[in-house]
Amino acid sequence: MKSGKKLDLSLYLVLDANLCKTPEGMAETARKAVEGGCTVVQLRAPEWKKKKQLRAAFLLKELLKDTDVLFIVDDHIDIALLSGADGVHVGQEDIDPKYVRQFLGPDAVIGLSVGSIKELNTIGPDVDYIGIGPVFSTKTKVDAGAAVGLGLLEYISKEAGLPNVAIGGINQSNAADCIRHGADGVAVVSAICGAEDPKAAAAAIKKAVNDALSI
Amino acid sequence: MKSGKKLDLSLYLVLDANLCKTPEGMAETARKAVEGGCTVVQLRAPEWKKKKQLRAAFLLKELLKDTDVLFIVDDHIDIALLSGADGVHVGQEDIDPKYVRQFLGPDAVIGLSVGSIKELNTIGPDVDYIGIGPVFSTKTKVDAGAAVGLGLLEYISKEAGLPNVAIGGINQSNAADCIRHGADGVAVVSAICGAEDPKAAAAAIKKAVNDALSI
Repeated sequence: MKSGKKLDLSLYLVLDANLCKTPEGMAETARKAVEGGCTVVQLRAPEWKKKKQLRAAFLLKELLKDTDVLFIVDDHIDIALLSGADGVHVGQEDIDPKYVRQFLGPDAVIGLSVGSIKELNTIGPDVDYIGIGPVFSTKTKVDAGAAVGLGLLEYISKEAGLPNVAIGGINQSNAADCIRHGADGVAVVSAICGAEDPKAAAAAIKKAVNDALSI
Repeated sequence: MKSGKKLDLSLYLVLDANLCKTPEGMAETARKAVEGGCTVVQLRAPEWKKKKQLRAAFLLKELLKDTDVLFIVDDHIDIALLSGADGVHVGQEDIDPKYVRQFLGPDAVIGLSVGSIKELNTIGPDVDYIGIGPVFSTKTKVDAGAAVGLGLLEYISKEAGLPNVAIGGINQSNAADCIRHGADGVAVVSAICGAEDPKAAAAAIKKAVNDALSI
């Protein structure tokens, strides 16, 4: 797996299976969000059987292959490899990043979720970026832990010393706060996937992030 | 992946995450069932996150590596490869056997679930054996289809012309019926995983199968 794309985490879209409903719905939401300035697209669909996840992955790869937008698959190494994704994101209870690296090779982008100070210890040399959260409370990920808040976001982002993206309950109104507390970007789920106009929603959040990054 | 083990489907244990509770519980159930004559062990734990599934896979590989008992992983190619399993079993909504073969190579054992006459069409050249079922109604797999019954088991096993194992609600009392209706073996979940004495339960079912096979 060879990505070659720049790691720009500024607006990281996590596609939600329930909000997007179908693989085609995911691709359509991603297309609009990319038009709005989204820089990473993650396929996350634990509710779907793998055949359906793979269909979504093929559609997303087709959409993103000639762009600078990174295509990341949540959890499933096999789906990432089959679809030619740029990388894989894993949680603390998923397969260890060192094993993910074995399969994906040196150029793949590997992300790890970090939700506490204790979990800073789990960041090994194979982790390219971390997702810190949930920063705010969220309804789209039922197994997410308690909200870490902006203070802990700042602490973890500094201690980790790696590119990071804040995640969990982030929208247009609080995205800039995350950047001001150490995030390199924001990961957004329902504020884009559940928006009437995903392109406009993405553009508004991207502007908030860019404004905060430029200060 | 190189199996080299003989494909003996006569008593195929499917480990159940809920009944076995932990990876260690799975390994213990498998150890006893193998003592009772079980010929295949499948790790099936969709309820568990992948880190936990991988831990179970390492324990099962350790248990089975110097035996003739096949070690099969349900659904997850990455877990099968990392643990050195002998093969992977997929359902109709999982990743297509042709992709599984790409990852696992020519010597791996690949199984496919078939639950209707229509699904006979999905058996491609990369499928080594099929699981036919659910033959009887079952409570251990919530997304299993309607029971196919012994008549359809016989029809599908003949038409498929591949090694096959009957699955779904099978226990000591109905295992022989499955063999008499075309099954090469029986896949058992709760009748072993939920038994007080998994070794004795396995031995009793194995005897019923062997008696029926020898007629």
